[in-house]
Amino acid sequence: MSKNTKVNAAILIIGNEILSGRTQDTNTSTLAVWLNSIGVKVNQVRVVPDEEKIIVEALNILRKTFDYVFTTGGIGPTHDDITAQAVSKAFNRKYEVHKDAFKILESYYKPGEFNEGRQKMVWMPKGAELILNPTSGAPGFKIENVFCLPGVPSILKSMLGGLKNKIVGGEPILSHTISLRTVESEIAHLLSSVQEKNKDVEIGSYPFFQAGKLGVSIVIRSEKQSKIDECNSQILEFINKMKLEIVER
Amino acid sequence: MSKNTKVNAAILIIGNEILSGRTQDTNTSTLAVWLNSIGVKVNQVRVVPDEEKIIVEALNILRKTFDYVFTTGGIGPTHDDITAQAVSKAFNRKYEVHKDAFKILESYYKPGEFNEGRQKMVWMPKGAELILNPTSGAPGFKIENVFCLPGVPSILKSMLGGLKNKIVGGEPILSHTISLRTVESEIAHLLSSVQEKNKDVEIGSYPFFQAGKLGVSIVIRSEKQSKIDECNSQILEFINKMKLEIVER
Repeated sequence: MSKNTKVNAAILIIGNEILSGRTQDTNTSTLAVWLNSIGVKVNQVRVVPDEEKIIVEALNILRKTFDYVFTTGGIGPTHDDITAQAVSKAFNRKYEVHKDAFKILESYYKPGEFNEGRQKMVWMPKGAELILNPTSGAPGFKIENVFCLPGVPSILKSMLGGLKNKIVGGEPILSHTISLRTVESEIAHLLSSVQEKNKDVEIGSYPFFQAGKLGVSIVIRSEKQSKIDECNSQILEFINKMKLEIVER
Repeated sequence: MSKNTKVNAAILIIGNEILSGRTQDTNTSTLAVWLNSIGVKVNQVRVVPDEEKIIVEALNILRKTFDYVFTTGGIGPTHDDITAQAVSKAFNRKYEVHKDAFKILESYYKPGEFNEGRQKMVWMPKGAELILNPTSGAPGFKIENVFCLPGVPSILKSMLGGLKNKIVGGEPILSHTISLRTVESEIAHLLSSVQEKNKDVEIGSYPFFQAGKLGVSIVIRSEKQSKIDECNSQILEFINKMKLEIVER
């Protein structure tokens, strides 16, 4: 029932550690919430292993399908960091030293510490535009509609501010949540009829357990506050009729 | 550098709540760790919205590419739960009441409580095989190589035990982690040469921050303990030479 907004994105998570279950991805949620706030809706996420062929294939599909693609992971100094190389191949661009990135890291590290491993991090696709990294020096990069970010969540977060002027979003996506002391099946048909009457609004229903009790959160999402308000009052109407308890979440 | 094991899988996460960033997916990690233990390697994860056409497309690609596909989410009683319908369409099978599922839920609920919303949960693709749900009654289902599981993490977890005899895995994927007080760039070239000498072993390098200090976890993964041991001693060799501190994680 969801509609496409004007501006959409995909996230490509590169890393065996996510696929093995060793590491819990949190970057999707960070990126999605931030992108929503600037009017970009995430329509797909893919997690792929550290394998060049697979990264190239996935990236080439995603960058042609969505307005923006954000990759996370694989831009560090070790052998399993192959994102920049794979992105170069996907765009059929030379994989080369980025002069400005070299200068940034040369002055970031103490004399003698800008070693071979670290120098790997300034190799990028020809023509890449840098995304500055206020936390640990090594920049990410942008090429056409693809933004390559690191996998470490705290570093990724610190780089988002610098992206804002490189992304043209639509209207921010607003949401409103109503949490009830009920079970989904009790309200399913009523919620369904509200959705029917408001096809251009995204209404989600999510069960939760809190303090040993069952509940349901209804989430209304749209770019228009007026549409959210309208759905909200239609939902409140059946809540009142059914005498359901609204709870804090 | 990772190699394909004999048996692989994809996870298809269905849910706007993950794409909006409202909910943090944890099922990937749960499924991946469990699948590794029975010799199945997760090679791809996709997150897609609650839209039939998109679910059908993604599922049809994944089920033809991978040995097994696990879907999570979208099998509840509300209007945004459309997984069973989409899976029916993907397999070109009739979407119909599953008689055994009906019986299970009829006896699970108190008389009169098996209402219209709940009855939606017994509609499945024709010929689906049930996956029992010891937590909340409503079963998941399996059709060919596709396993449809719920999105609520605690319920999903409780259903894994019942899947074991439906999956033929390879050798369990073993892993060994060495955590060091160092930075990735210091060990990058040495680790790279160990990887070069052991191409059929997956070696990952992951920076971490703990108690205000930087560190690196090296993860060695293979089905063969002997190969892990061999890599481990090659890595310990350079660790000793460089006098790096091994730390607990």
